[in-house]
Amino acid sequence: MRASVAIFLSSPLKLLIEDDCRIDRGVRLLSGNTASLILKKGVRIGLYSVFNGGDSITVGRKSLVSGFVYLQTSMHNYMGKGSIQSQGYAHKPIVLGDDVWIGTHAVLFPGVILGDGCIVGSGSVVNKSFKAFTVVVGSPAKLLKSREF
Amino acid sequence: MRASVAIFLSSPLKLLIEDDCRIDRGVRLLSGNTASLILKKGVRIGLYSVFNGGDSITVGRKSLVSGFVYLQTSMHNYMGKGSIQSQGYAHKPIVLGDDVWIGTHAVLFPGVILGDGCIVGSGSVVNKSFKAFTVVVGSPAKLLKSREF
Amino acid sequence: MRASVAIFLSSPLKLLIEDDCRIDRGVRLLSGNTASLILKKGVRIGLYSVFNGGDSITVGRKSLVSGFVYLQTSMHNYMGKGSIQSQGYAHKPIVLGDDVWIGTHAVLFPGVILGDGCIVGSGSVVNKSFKAFTVVVGSPAKLLKSREF
Repeated sequence: MRASVAIFLSSPLKLLIEDDCRIDRGVRLLSGNTASLILKKGVRIGLYSVFNGGDSITVGRKSLVSGFVYLQTSMHNYMGKGSIQSQGYAHKPIVLGDDVWIGTHAVLFPGVILGDGCIVGSGSVVNKSFKAFTVVVGSPAKLLKSREF
Repeated sequence: MRASVAIFLSSPLKLLIEDDCRIDRGVRLLSGNTASLILKKGVRIGLYSVFNGGDSITVGRKSLVSGFVYLQTSMHNYMGKGSIQSQGYAHKPIVLGDDVWIGTHAVLFPGVILGDGCIVGSGSVVNKSFKAFTVVVGSPAKLLKSREF
Repeated sequence: MRASVAIFLSSPLKLLIEDDCRIDRGVRLLSGNTASLILKKGVRIGLYSVFNGGDSITVGRKSLVSGFVYLQTSMHNYMGKGSIQSQGYAHKPIVLGDDVWIGTHAVLFPGVILGDGCIVGSGSVVNKSFKAFTVVVGSPAKLLKSREF
């Protein structure tokens, strides 16, 4: 883990980083409320990526998160004409399976669940869940193909 | 304001940050030429966002700018076959109304004016102006819906 | 070159930065394996951009690379159901001609060759090569227009 990684926790019991994880420069891991943040064995996180954990985030074994990736487990509510700031957040957990690969600049929304071996293209905005061994791209992300074996 | 925020001004009179603003890690606020940079009361700016002020930028009250957002008030000219670097810039101000919310990784072009309560989706590239209380997404950004009340 | 620029080389002979180059805050220049990294005279690189050189990167004279740009010369292989991490990389060089302009948040894939004077729009994902004096945008990047003279 590089020196400039920033970790913000509302409780130290909420973070689990298993062995052989590598976290690059400038990454922010944030876990608020009652959320937990779990990085399983062998996870890699690229430079400046943000795990914004107003809700829980789980990243499966050997998953690869590139640089400038933004995992967003909470979103502002925006009902009515009142200030968005005063409306609080809607939040849902994000779960990445094992061996998932997230390309650079991708953004994941609250509630996204990606199955094992799922690949997200660079710059994608992922606002729904996808099954194992799929390749998804675009904004909003759509199925490009299933991985073949 | 966090320690790594970088502010570059060609004159100290050109920056106005009202009270209750929060500016996160690695943000760059730049105001060149005769431009001014105004952040009204209660503005939030997320990590690593860039306010590239070759022209003026105004952000209205309680507006929310997420991380990795790039406000670009100037663009290189690219006429003829001569070097782009030697052609100078075209610049126009950017104006965000009150209670605007800009999603992560969004880019705003020179001259963009967003009305009060406007929401820009993550990863959008905004090259024109939008009315109050609209939600816009994509590259280039298009109207997704009007906020309902 | 600003203080926070990070340069990682597997051999010091592989980096050539000609005169009058400017490299902004937080940039990462990485050259691994037998790759070389060449920045010709007058190149500008914006803040936090990443030159991920598992293969060679050449940037022509006076080319402009904006902030948060990611040049990706290698990609994980993802054959079969085995771990992506264990499959190594496919890599190809990236070559930018003279006077190229890459917009903020753009991502370039391995093997991309851009001719002189080519312009890549903000947030584009470029997965193929384009000819000189073209303007390309989108994900994946497509021809928007040819520059007129």
